[in-house]
Amino acid sequence: MIDNDSGNIKLEHGAGGEEMHELLKLMLRYFNFTNANASNNSNKWAKAVIDVPLKALDDSAVVDNIVFTTDSHTVKPLFFPGGDIGSLSIAGTVNDIAVMGAEPLCLSVAFVIEEGFPITDFERLLESMKKTCEDAEVAVVTGDTKVVERGAVERIIVNTSAIGRRTEALEKNMEEVRRYRELAGNWLIDSNLRDGDSIIVSGYLGDHGIALLSFREGFEFDTGLQSDIAPLNRTIHEVLNVGGVVAMKDLTRGGLANSLNEFSLKSNVGILIEEDKIPVRESVRNACELLGIDQLEIGNEGKLVMGVVKEKASDVLHALWRTKHGKDAAIIGSATEKLGAKKLKGVVMKTQVGGMRIVETPIGDPVPRIC
Amino acid sequence: MIDNDSGNIKLEHGAGGEEMHELLKLMLRYFNFTNANASNNSNKWAKAVIDVPLKALDDSAVVDNIVFTTDSHTVKPLFFPGGDIGSLSIAGTVNDIAVMGAEPLCLSVAFVIEEGFPITDFERLLESMKKTCEDAEVAVVTGDTKVVERGAVERIIVNTSAIGRRTEALEKNMEEVRRYRELAGNWLIDSNLRDGDSIIVSGYLGDHGIALLSFREGFEFDTGLQSDIAPLNRTIHEVLNVGGVVAMKDLTRGGLANSLNEFSLKSNVGILIEEDKIPVRESVRNACELLGIDQLEIGNEGKLVMGVVKEKASDVLHALWRTKHGKDAAIIGSATEKLGAKKLKGVVMKTQVGGMRIVETPIGDPVPRIC
Repeated sequence: MIDNDSGNIKLEHGAGGEEMHELLKLMLRYFNFTNANASNNSNKWAKAVIDVPLKALDDSAVVDNIVFTTDSHTVKPLFFPGGDIGSLSIAGTVNDIAVMGAEPLCLSVAFVIEEGFPITDFERLLESMKKTCEDAEVAVVTGDTKVVERGAVERIIVNTSAIGRRTEALEKNMEEVRRYRELAGNWLIDSNLRDGDSIIVSGYLGDHGIALLSFREGFEFDTGLQSDIAPLNRTIHEVLNVGGVVAMKDLTRGGLANSLNEFSLKSNVGILIEEDKIPVRESVRNACELLGIDQLEIGNEGKLVMGVVKEKASDVLHALWRTKHGKDAAIIGSATEKLGAKKLKGVVMKTQVGGMRIVETPIGDPVPRIC
Repeated sequence: MIDNDSGNIKLEHGAGGEEMHELLKLMLRYFNFTNANASNNSNKWAKAVIDVPLKALDDSAVVDNIVFTTDSHTVKPLFFPGGDIGSLSIAGTVNDIAVMGAEPLCLSVAFVIEEGFPITDFERLLESMKKTCEDAEVAVVTGDTKVVERGAVERIIVNTSAIGRRTEALEKNMEEVRRYRELAGNWLIDSNLRDGDSIIVSGYLGDHGIALLSFREGFEFDTGLQSDIAPLNRTIHEVLNVGGVVAMKDLTRGGLANSLNEFSLKSNVGILIEEDKIPVRESVRNACELLGIDQLEIGNEGKLVMGVVKEKASDVLHALWRTKHGKDAAIIGSATEKLGAKKLKGVVMKTQVGGMRIVETPIGDPVPRIC
């Protein structure tokens, strides 16, 4: 039983932070099949080899070398500066496949639509999904459509699932890593980080969350900020061709704070980042200050964080700078076991004024319904 | 643009009949990628071979021999006699993979939950999903959870997607078919039916739809009827080991009327069935008469219809009788090009009183929100 006063599901259970982790632990108790949950174990009938199981809680699962992921999208409003629920659902799912180091093979799309939803809006979403698919060079191959009576769902919900597969670029990347050290797993998983690895982000943080929030709430500090929604599989492909990447996540719910804490916890290593190296736009910084939101906790839809063996960090950074979606990339810190004389656990940030601040896993989501 | 007075999505657009087909045609215009939509064509980057594309509108897609399907479940109420949205979502998706002739490899589960949903109910659903997974011998390997504010979704929506793969049993089945004739496609697809093939259903029609409807509406003709929800992959495995099956569907939205019309349209062959051979329980028949619902249009969640080369029909029937979920199976008719002296198109039923009735694709769904 979840530690919950009311015994009911709360918004925080879906917010990508601590409370969500509690709910996930509950689910794992039910979906922790003895015949198919462990790495290198086998399903007795299908004899599937599960490389990345559910309990890894990574961006995708890997079964028999097939990468598999799912996301249901409830973003509000449906249309916003820089994107809509259509482009978001395609890009988000492509990215969950791609951050494992895999190439997306195809997508499924399942709509739940409220009766009375305008067909012109639906076509606008379809057009946007089509464009994002073309951008990612991936096809929708299967789908489902349910229409429910008014009030049963707020306008439209989109689920996208996808499968992907191992590529030569990933093999090359892993080979490069092994020139320097061993790996915990053969994909870009959260538990692969080790002492000394560099932490790189691919661009400005918080654009999506703040663009959406300011549009939704009609805030006056709107400075023409756009969501950063983008499929990043081609960007990642370029990076893997350079080699040396060990772990990667796309910065969605819970932002950088959540992703780095997942890296730290699963890899059992401390992470030290420097505030003045983290790329955040002036407009996003200002909005966060005004609203009392931590810029590290805001979700993006087109940004990556990765761990790279330190010998390759500069090469990876330069490769990112040459890509469309990585030109503002930066090395923001490193995985480290020591902070001064102490053993470092968790995530710590050296602030601009020279102090140290612990970056905790967000409890709730400062900007709900952004994905 | 869909032919629609209001320009809005209607309930019928999700009902599995004619109007849904219009909406699907609209979607196909957007998802009909030139680089990846045709059989034996290739995606220019991923170089995927799409065996069963989106435009086939079959139960699953097949890409590079990986079978892939998705379904969002909005059944109301969440708990009903014989099942719940949990067992339904697992069994329904397992069946969509299995009716292609494939073995389900693993599942994804994505929840959209309304804030305030009781955790005890959520655990009840998880327990039910776990049991159905064990029954089907398939594992949930990846997932997503979104929690939305009150009113944004009615309680809970569950998406399940799955991947499956080709099995020796399917190879054996196809080999057996080829002893008698050629096939349009190398999976159990809707376009494989030919003149003379027998049509077999695996058991009583309408149990799920009528059980759910009578429970939901509190009708007095309730006779203890239970939903027939069941994962059918093992049943299908037994049938494939006998061999001779060319096409298969699970009888969900739109019931037998919809499935047979899909067979007829895609295979370009007429289908003649006999009313007195169709297994329908007395209680379902009575309920249908009372409510003025066509029993052929009601959805099931644990029943199959299949086309079998006539030389193997009796063997397949006997194999079904030996399975848990196929013991009431029956041969209900055959694919035929001629009806008397006329060329037969579509689906025709010889009624119990000896007349002939055209079985049309349902326009709407007589029992909404059943899956």
